[in-house]
Amino acid sequence: MPRIKLVIEYDGSNYHGFQSQDNAHTIQAELEKQLFNLCHEKISICGAGRTDAGVHARGQVVAFNTDSRIPPAKWTIALNSFLPDDIRVLSSSEVKHDFHPQFHAISKHYAYYIYRRQSAATFYRRYALLNRESFDITAMNQACRFIEGSHDFRAFCAAGSTAKTFTRTVSNCAMREQGSLLILDIKADGFLYNMVRIIAGTLIQVGKKRIEPEEIKNILESQERARAGPTAPPQGLYMLAVEYNC
Amino acid sequence: MPRIKLVIEYDGSNYHGFQSQDNAHTIQAELEKQLFNLCHEKISICGAGRTDAGVHARGQVVAFNTDSRIPPAKWTIALNSFLPDDIRVLSSSEVKHDFHPQFHAISKHYAYYIYRRQSAATFYRRYALLNRESFDITAMNQACRFIEGSHDFRAFCAAGSTAKTFTRTVSNCAMREQGSLLILDIKADGFLYNMVRIIAGTLIQVGKKRIEPEEIKNILESQERARAGPTAPPQGLYMLAVEYNC
Repeated sequence: MPRIKLVIEYDGSNYHGFQSQDNAHTIQAELEKQLFNLCHEKISICGAGRTDAGVHARGQVVAFNTDSRIPPAKWTIALNSFLPDDIRVLSSSEVKHDFHPQFHAISKHYAYYIYRRQSAATFYRRYALLNRESFDITAMNQACRFIEGSHDFRAFCAAGSTAKTFTRTVSNCAMREQGSLLILDIKADGFLYNMVRIIAGTLIQVGKKRIEPEEIKNILESQERARAGPTAPPQGLYMLAVEYNC
Repeated sequence: MPRIKLVIEYDGSNYHGFQSQDNAHTIQAELEKQLFNLCHEKISICGAGRTDAGVHARGQVVAFNTDSRIPPAKWTIALNSFLPDDIRVLSSSEVKHDFHPQFHAISKHYAYYIYRRQSAATFYRRYALLNRESFDITAMNQACRFIEGSHDFRAFCAAGSTAKTFTRTVSNCAMREQGSLLILDIKADGFLYNMVRIIAGTLIQVGKKRIEPEEIKNILESQERARAGPTAPPQGLYMLAVEYNC
């Protein structure tokens, strides 16, 4: 039974997140529904990460077993002809029988978009966090240096996490400007629940001079969620890519 | 009775165009409804241009008479608290009693967005025309030179236009690149029905080497709609700004 890996992109605005839930319109449920329409086979998919409602993906990875004889590279065009235009398959390939998109990931790359404008978000209302204040980007990047490395990120993890270990290694964390957008780029071997959104919310406080860059070190050491900034809203978050060894 | 001018911006994706029609969800109907909710007064607005379904605006201008004593500059914040987040008032001011947003306009500025990508539009599906082919941008800009100036634009006007004269003066027409976007910037003293979208559709044919840049001259002279390219779809079109002498 072949196992297929898909790299997908989606606009999460109209979905209740990635993972299937009873009576909720989710990315997973939509994919499984259209896989059924395509090959008349009940297929269960698993993904590299469970994005929340309103969160977007440019490179989510999913995998599934199938009896279908569709050639691996053809799943892209075949499935796209069934999927709604806010979910798109970017590529498809065959993988080993034991490939797991989440457990075999060696790194994940996320971005958080902040839209800087005095008036209104309008065209970015579903795609970024609007911020009217000015930012000290140098201070934000100084704070990013304290995020990088291996740390216990318990202070940057939402309550209700089922994680067993809280140490993660952030290989890259930086702010970059792209026109009116201010973008947090962050890459790690894994992320705790809401970790990127809490880091974004904390870096915004640094940019507004409400938290000193050096304070990040103390927040990490405290392991107290209350010491970090607020959780930035979902619509600014993008899952960009997932890397594998295989 | 004061007359108020508003500069507004809207994401046209969820509207059946600007102008009120029976039982249709339009920008005008939504504005008039929220003006009623704000000042309990039946207010009729008129706009600088009637954008079609799916067309966006970053600087549409509307005006209306009112008995309300809301100070002119306060309409922005007052009305925004009632409007949905896909329609935003950017500024408000008092104007002369005879000010008409359409008839007194001395120039209008539009943009048409083309999104160049091999895979799918996804995040731009409502905000640009997806195009997978490569473009000869130099040829497109050569064609733009023939669009500029005073011409009879009958060949670039949709059937069913109620225009009495077909001569318009295009003061600026140019293609510019902005990352993955290729943007047509066009400014004129006025536009015929669907004129920008037909010019965009024709320039795309030039970019794909199906129409020679010099052919624009012949198309204009022919005054035949069939000689120009297809009408580019609405979601790439943005009304950017309207200028007045007063």
